[in-house]
Amino acid sequence: MVLVLKKGYDQKQLDNLIGWLKGLGVDTHLSEGRYQTILGLVGDTSAVDIELVKSMDIVETAKRIQEPYKNANRKFHPDDTVIDIGGIKLGGGHFQLIAGPCSVESEEQIITVAREVQKAGAKLLRGGAFKPRTSPYAFQGLRAHGLELLLEAKKATGMPIVTEIMEASHIPLFEDVDVIQVGARNMQNFELLKELGHLDKPILLKRGLANTLQELLMSAEYIMAGGNQKVILCERGIRTFETATRNTLDLSAVAMLHEMSHLPVVVDPSHATGISRLVRPMAMAAAAAGADGLMIEVHNDPTHALCDGAQSLTPDAFAQVSEDVQKILPIVGKRMDG
Amino acid sequence: MVLVLKKGYDQKQLDNLIGWLKGLGVDTHLSEGRYQTILGLVGDTSAVDIELVKSMDIVETAKRIQEPYKNANRKFHPDDTVIDIGGIKLGGGHFQLIAGPCSVESEEQIITVAREVQKAGAKLLRGGAFKPRTSPYAFQGLRAHGLELLLEAKKATGMPIVTEIMEASHIPLFEDVDVIQVGARNMQNFELLKELGHLDKPILLKRGLANTLQELLMSAEYIMAGGNQKVILCERGIRTFETATRNTLDLSAVAMLHEMSHLPVVVDPSHATGISRLVRPMAMAAAAAGADGLMIEVHNDPTHALCDGAQSLTPDAFAQVSEDVQKILPIVGKRMDG
Amino acid sequence: MVLVLKKGYDQKQLDNLIGWLKGLGVDTHLSEGRYQTILGLVGDTSAVDIELVKSMDIVETAKRIQEPYKNANRKFHPDDTVIDIGGIKLGGGHFQLIAGPCSVESEEQIITVAREVQKAGAKLLRGGAFKPRTSPYAFQGLRAHGLELLLEAKKATGMPIVTEIMEASHIPLFEDVDVIQVGARNMQNFELLKELGHLDKPILLKRGLANTLQELLMSAEYIMAGGNQKVILCERGIRTFETATRNTLDLSAVAMLHEMSHLPVVVDPSHATGISRLVRPMAMAAAAAGADGLMIEVHNDPTHALCDGAQSLTPDAFAQVSEDVQKILPIVGKRMDG
Amino acid sequence: MVLVLKKGYDQKQLDNLIGWLKGLGVDTHLSEGRYQTILGLVGDTSAVDIELVKSMDIVETAKRIQEPYKNANRKFHPDDTVIDIGGIKLGGGHFQLIAGPCSVESEEQIITVAREVQKAGAKLLRGGAFKPRTSPYAFQGLRAHGLELLLEAKKATGMPIVTEIMEASHIPLFEDVDVIQVGARNMQNFELLKELGHLDKPILLKRGLANTLQELLMSAEYIMAGGNQKVILCERGIRTFETATRNTLDLSAVAMLHEMSHLPVVVDPSHATGISRLVRPMAMAAAAAGADGLMIEVHNDPTHALCDGAQSLTPDAFAQVSEDVQKILPIVGKRMDG
Repeated sequence: MVLVLKKGYDQKQLDNLIGWLKGLGVDTHLSEGRYQTILGLVGDTSAVDIELVKSMDIVETAKRIQEPYKNANRKFHPDDTVIDIGGIKLGGGHFQLIAGPCSVESEEQIITVAREVQKAGAKLLRGGAFKPRTSPYAFQGLRAHGLELLLEAKKATGMPIVTEIMEASHIPLFEDVDVIQVGARNMQNFELLKELGHLDKPILLKRGLANTLQELLMSAEYIMAGGNQKVILCERGIRTFETATRNTLDLSAVAMLHEMSHLPVVVDPSHATGISRLVRPMAMAAAAAGADGLMIEVHNDPTHALCDGAQSLTPDAFAQVSEDVQKILPIVGKRMDG
Repeated sequence: MVLVLKKGYDQKQLDNLIGWLKGLGVDTHLSEGRYQTILGLVGDTSAVDIELVKSMDIVETAKRIQEPYKNANRKFHPDDTVIDIGGIKLGGGHFQLIAGPCSVESEEQIITVAREVQKAGAKLLRGGAFKPRTSPYAFQGLRAHGLELLLEAKKATGMPIVTEIMEASHIPLFEDVDVIQVGARNMQNFELLKELGHLDKPILLKRGLANTLQELLMSAEYIMAGGNQKVILCERGIRTFETATRNTLDLSAVAMLHEMSHLPVVVDPSHATGISRLVRPMAMAAAAAGADGLMIEVHNDPTHALCDGAQSLTPDAFAQVSEDVQKILPIVGKRMDG
Repeated sequence: MVLVLKKGYDQKQLDNLIGWLKGLGVDTHLSEGRYQTILGLVGDTSAVDIELVKSMDIVETAKRIQEPYKNANRKFHPDDTVIDIGGIKLGGGHFQLIAGPCSVESEEQIITVAREVQKAGAKLLRGGAFKPRTSPYAFQGLRAHGLELLLEAKKATGMPIVTEIMEASHIPLFEDVDVIQVGARNMQNFELLKELGHLDKPILLKRGLANTLQELLMSAEYIMAGGNQKVILCERGIRTFETATRNTLDLSAVAMLHEMSHLPVVVDPSHATGISRLVRPMAMAAAAAGADGLMIEVHNDPTHALCDGAQSLTPDAFAQVSEDVQKILPIVGKRMDG
Repeated sequence: MVLVLKKGYDQKQLDNLIGWLKGLGVDTHLSEGRYQTILGLVGDTSAVDIELVKSMDIVETAKRIQEPYKNANRKFHPDDTVIDIGGIKLGGGHFQLIAGPCSVESEEQIITVAREVQKAGAKLLRGGAFKPRTSPYAFQGLRAHGLELLLEAKKATGMPIVTEIMEASHIPLFEDVDVIQVGARNMQNFELLKELGHLDKPILLKRGLANTLQELLMSAEYIMAGGNQKVILCERGIRTFETATRNTLDLSAVAMLHEMSHLPVVVDPSHATGISRLVRPMAMAAAAAGADGLMIEVHNDPTHALCDGAQSLTPDAFAQVSEDVQKILPIVGKRMDG
């Protein structure tokens, strides 16, 4: 971190600041220039709160030049992390399709969809039981019962399951879930992240709608600092001024996160665009950008299943996406193995 | 809601759609135009999921022309809501200053600050006990002990207290807290909102960094749908491309929310700007824009209290802000009474 | 367009409004509902200013349900537009690489780079002569002399050239330029667009940093309304809160623009990311998303050419990108022919 | 500027870089740390292109710690700039109301409105002659004839006039205009800015919809570098994800610009919100935030004048705004004198 001090700064305040930094294990190096005086911070500055420093009386501005995340940082872990999910590998060349309905609706529905997406190449089954909805008047998911149905589908097909948690006190219900998803709206639900850090289970962490890549990695760091190193990052679109698509899918995030971190990155083109017709081109683009997997909504009968089904792909359309994506994989050095 | 149907839409799918809408208590009116066919929805459409409808095969686009929020809607409750907080009124002409430190640090600190801000005109004391921090390595607040210290300060000064909750399971700890704050990052923590809806206690709900005014009102609606009508809205800056200030304070939100809703609106200029020098002009601007209150960070010794204190106002600076804001109030028809 | 009228609207004002709309050739249809009264507009509403209508006393809100662009609209021109650039086809299955240096620096430089990128598969040469720079103290390009050097390179290699215009009065200088580029900052320089509409020459129109896809098509419409139908759209990244990359490349824009319009869409991954290491993955992703071409910065000696060269690919790196992109093309039904 | 070098950077590349910087008059200071090597730049770095530097092979990241603007920088010009417009002072305690119709429509209209706003306290008359419109099918203004009508109104009332320019070649038409306005869409029309830098006439420069405060000051710098120091900055709303208001008025920009620069700052609440009902609260808030003036749209007959008039205030509503704003001024140490 580099601090630019204000002209005519108070020496006593500077001494306080240097003492406080020393207490955090950070050494300093003062350099007086013609135009400004710079205080360089030497050592591990991840415990230094840059907003706090910026707001100090004697500090004109502060710039971080070292990343505040450690466990998630590729610099300290150069090799790709490969996550093992019940024998299915994700990351480091292993590409996986995660597919299933937005909401679990019934045993028949979830098992039917699971079999269809499995046939088309998906190794992991997704399905929403606890549903975060903007409106209190919208369907909130089957909740605990939905989890039971997902486990039935797992039993029937052997597919590991991925489903979203919304609240730390629900963790016991997720004991048999293979991958716990943290949704975009909970990316900075720090109490939840801390609790998930104590589990020995992969966490799929979605980027918040207005969160930077660094903040996403800091949220991964919350989980990893607790001991759980099995974090899968997920880009699912950010909020911009554009209204033609529901969100703006940020695919440069895939390549950038791979530089910044060793954690695998999957992409959710369904939520990002909100338009089923755009899922196929965005799935292919994500694969070409180097994603380690895709998370796609599939419903067996979008016409009748008026809730959620309609924005999903049919199993046939998903099979087509899977086929096209598989043509891209060898070009980027990935494979869809077990 | 108005739906534009695709050219050559399938009649059977349309029948399904109309039947589904009827099931939700919504009538329809079809009008075939030269360029497009429009299906108008008549009745209470708040239970209709517009994203779902947009994604249907036969629908080209859908536009909501009625607000999806009811309890929070000024149309159905034309009069301003006035919230009573231990005898202190907020809203409907009653303007209040809420002040205190970012984090509670010690009994002496919180009582000293409380007395100072009270002297300067603040009727409500704020202080963070549970602190949402981007980094797991940053100070996370005194948590339960911080709440105890706040209650000591309340006892010593008689000021009702406002403090943030981060997790539904913590609610029992907040029994003696006067106003529970929901932070920007938890604005769409729906499980938390639902639980707060069952309390009989004012909730100060902060707007998320990337949330629209309608979404803020939908989150208020979550609380109100549970029975708790005592919601105070809070604008605290949104995330934009601008980097000179930490966030962009959206003061048109104050005037717009007053049109859309009957709920009181307070503004937090400290978090919005992240720069203590900007607190005074933004506090005055918020008052002039018609805010029902201000939430301002004040620390008794910003120089030594290196954590959080530094970005806060001193008690003297706060007293100046209070004095200046009070000059604005009569111009906008507000008063800072008990 | 659908207007929702305010409760208790004034009948005389409504009559004025209906009369004004009739004058614009737009019929109306009033429907009184339980909760609101809706005025439907029937006919070609592209001349109706929605902002104006929204601001009228009796109008609560207005929603456009028909696109305001005509010439650029795929509904009225279902077939892909193919642009012919000196015998090189772009669009409708014809994919092209446009490559060259950010700035033209010397005859030797531009000819060397042209030959290198041509060898690697680029059919069109780009190079900046007039350079829009944020700072008045930065290099502003060789301007008219840069255009001469580009024409030399065209003569030497036979490659058609693409270069940016910044001001309508410069048009005569661009007589021998094959494709005139309008930069992001000039996307809504309407006086310039109008003048370009009178030319018989392809225009490569870049999306502004904060412009919606509809606004991009409205700017295309400015050119097309003047008679020039040869517009190539270009996505080059939009401005968001993310700071890890210079801009956020919006690849869903490619698929969405192909739905909305028949015009070809190229992608500029160099400007979008600002990081040469991200050009390759983003180029591949753009091709997979269905782009009709790529515009890539290449410099022959990035190490010494400190200006601009450094952010560009070397010719070798470009050759690798070209090779990888060509593996993607058959999967999406495109070819890089003459 | 501070550069962080990549681990294992190439010494020859570093020598090139240092040599290049020396050529720009910038000295360097290398400091090898445990975690990174930092190259500090000493001297005037305003000619160093940070994007270029960031993209160099050996540079991991670069941070600017000195502002790239000089003429506009308050550090080098501590006193407020006061602009004299035909005897009317703006800036440094002198607050002015600039009012008039969005578009000039007729001699009668512009003179009537001018007299009304003058009576209510406006000292400067605004009116659009050249109108930037998103759609080529919308009314483009009376153009040169509109300028003539404005000059008639100036003659009739003595009010200096403010009107927008869209193209450098139109400058001769603006000879008798008192203040030339550069609209948001042309904030980075650098060719236009350069030409305006050669005039001796105040320029009102509006912030672009997606431009940072630093970019706004860099555009001011374009004008000032040419010799014209009479720049008035204007905040008129930025583009965010919020859709309830047309744009998001950024009032912290007013306070922040006053820190960064000595130039006066006016606010346009009409365009920022797009909703006439919000003009009054936002005008008052802007005054309370320390703005040096307001630019407000007023039309004499919004009901009949269907174009533009409808979104404007009536003269009576404007008089009320003026009265309320004048109550705020003494609180912030401003006055509306001649």
